[in-house]
Amino acid sequence: MIYLDNSATTKPHPDVLKSFYQVSDTFFANPSSIHQLGGETEKLLLKAKQQAAQLLHVEEDEIIFTSGGTEGNNIAIKGIALEHQNRGKHIITSEIEHPSVYEACKSLEQLGFEITFLPVDQNGVVSVKELEQSIRKDTILISIMHVNNEIGSIQPIKEIGEIAKKHPKLFFHIDYVQGLGKIPLAFANSGIDLCTMSGHKIHGLKGTGILYINKRTKLFPLFHGGEQERSIRSGTENVAGAVAMVKALRLIKERENVEINKMKALRDLLKIELEKIDDIQINSPEAGAPHIMNFSVPGIKPEVMIHILGEQHIYISTKSACSSKQTDESRIVSACGFNQERAKTALRVSLSYENTEEEIRIFLTKLNEAIQQLKEVME
Amino acid sequence: MIYLDNSATTKPHPDVLKSFYQVSDTFFANPSSIHQLGGETEKLLLKAKQQAAQLLHVEEDEIIFTSGGTEGNNIAIKGIALEHQNRGKHIITSEIEHPSVYEACKSLEQLGFEITFLPVDQNGVVSVKELEQSIRKDTILISIMHVNNEIGSIQPIKEIGEIAKKHPKLFFHIDYVQGLGKIPLAFANSGIDLCTMSGHKIHGLKGTGILYINKRTKLFPLFHGGEQERSIRSGTENVAGAVAMVKALRLIKERENVEINKMKALRDLLKIELEKIDDIQINSPEAGAPHIMNFSVPGIKPEVMIHILGEQHIYISTKSACSSKQTDESRIVSACGFNQERAKTALRVSLSYENTEEEIRIFLTKLNEAIQQLKEVME
Repeated sequence: MIYLDNSATTKPHPDVLKSFYQVSDTFFANPSSIHQLGGETEKLLLKAKQQAAQLLHVEEDEIIFTSGGTEGNNIAIKGIALEHQNRGKHIITSEIEHPSVYEACKSLEQLGFEITFLPVDQNGVVSVKELEQSIRKDTILISIMHVNNEIGSIQPIKEIGEIAKKHPKLFFHIDYVQGLGKIPLAFANSGIDLCTMSGHKIHGLKGTGILYINKRTKLFPLFHGGEQERSIRSGTENVAGAVAMVKALRLIKERENVEINKMKALRDLLKIELEKIDDIQINSPEAGAPHIMNFSVPGIKPEVMIHILGEQHIYISTKSACSSKQTDESRIVSACGFNQERAKTALRVSLSYENTEEEIRIFLTKLNEAIQQLKEVME
Repeated sequence: MIYLDNSATTKPHPDVLKSFYQVSDTFFANPSSIHQLGGETEKLLLKAKQQAAQLLHVEEDEIIFTSGGTEGNNIAIKGIALEHQNRGKHIITSEIEHPSVYEACKSLEQLGFEITFLPVDQNGVVSVKELEQSIRKDTILISIMHVNNEIGSIQPIKEIGEIAKKHPKLFFHIDYVQGLGKIPLAFANSGIDLCTMSGHKIHGLKGTGILYINKRTKLFPLFHGGEQERSIRSGTENVAGAVAMVKALRLIKERENVEINKMKALRDLLKIELEKIDDIQINSPEAGAPHIMNFSVPGIKPEVMIHILGEQHIYISTKSACSSKQTDESRIVSACGFNQERAKTALRVSLSYENTEEEIRIFLTKLNEAIQQLKEVME
């Protein structure tokens, strides 16, 4: 199997699964139970939180364990909106956000909020100047993704953070789901108030995630209840999930340090070879993330291509998995100013540290063959 | 170990853990991915949904997989409130709900909703007549728990359902977290629109749950995004978690059928023997759930008792785990009209199908010894 759909999800690391299994089996007590068994489980949860904080260079009470990226993004966006709506009902985001940010913002329009969706240039990047100009007195939140999940463009988070710092009354949220483990992000003195991370994109488990929330940030919780997780995310803590999340985080950080250049080289190889194929147009920007390569093959239906490659056990995707069953045109590729045909025929290869040069070369050969085959059929 | 804190959480069944492990390892693809690997995972998810629907005698598109009970309760309550607020902002619930219902309702007061918290009698049961009388033109939701988590009282869900049916404009939500696997609940033609279930209370995994939502019910989703789970609960589906949840559901249903009388006999034994101890006052009602026995030992701090028993590897609890670190008086026991001393000294034994008569007898002996020991110290 050649799995090149790692931005949709990754294969869990065996050690992550092992951790989950062991904790579930041995430390099954409710960490809120005051007996000794509950106390042991609570200790384990606190240890996981400490480790996550160390790995991310933040404080341990700034870490909230969640069920994943969509939950993290929704807690952040709706939590700020509902808590601070008396101060203002204006939110700034971009046109190329993941559906869990884009649709969360759109849903707030139903509750009387006004959303500015910033456009992006052909590289899929927002204008920092335009962002600054759209800040109003009633702006309470800026939510911008770090790495785009379809084309891999990287937003100028550092610069936006500097702007956010000049407006201490608004909050700044980052969707860091695609960037985590590939492009480091500094939290200290960054202007970032909230940052969403997901386990299953870094060889962790589905149903696990982390939301970074700095201490100054007050939210209206989506889950009220037993006041777990600083009352921000009530509910019996999934301790095994938290431990598994932190294990995945530690492992991906180790690989990031050692193997990021190998991944960059694979993406370069992909780009060079794809550009040699006449029928292909590259959609990912030059300065994109090291794991995402988006390209279009005009005239060829992407689902047909995915099927042909899938029969040979090679797995790539159209746009994002979270949008794959909706309209056939990529909202992201369109937002970059590419035409409809290009937006309709986009394909995405997304890498993990597991992928090899050999796999990429086989994929390129099979892709080429498939294009020739489909062209012959259509002639 | 004698584990008698099963209403806080249960030990995962080995088969449940095995299912989770196998699915995570083999069917790791994103079920929304359109390639063959995604298709296989999606099929597995649909199969899990079908099985859950069969076990609960509902339709498969009425099943939503969640991260647990607190999420289910919050999706139901806030989802109805935010979606239907233009029609009315009045909600009816009870004074003895789990914090995830009680606090969710309280949080809505901040958003301009009005909540009627129905009182309960000394048996911990709401008055159906009083409930009916509190329905107003602007009532949009009745949220009532099935089995109370601290004292085990059972609400007249069937009768309330009949009332709800007479008011088709309002929605009826049940917190079924404690009743599942112990007391069957019929959904068909019951008046129930939404029903929350949790995995980790039935030897499933933390981070898993089911929310039943019938087809007529429209919610404002807490998680917007990729439109998974009928757009009610977006986010990459935790397929391994869903399969594990359904496995736990199947196993507990099997045991419910075969072993419920054994559990009832254990509770009867507990009650008879506890009543023989002079210093003990039983708080659970006669007609309570078969797995919960709540009692007070006035004059003895419950945390001290839990510690002494815990040293002997016997685990029971004060009130609910989700309230254990808050004020020292049980809101539930107080609501039943018992005095403050009784509400402050309440202890809970909660059974699973794993518990044996021998365990109960050892617990009773050790409890008796501990009471005598503490009385001597205090004299």
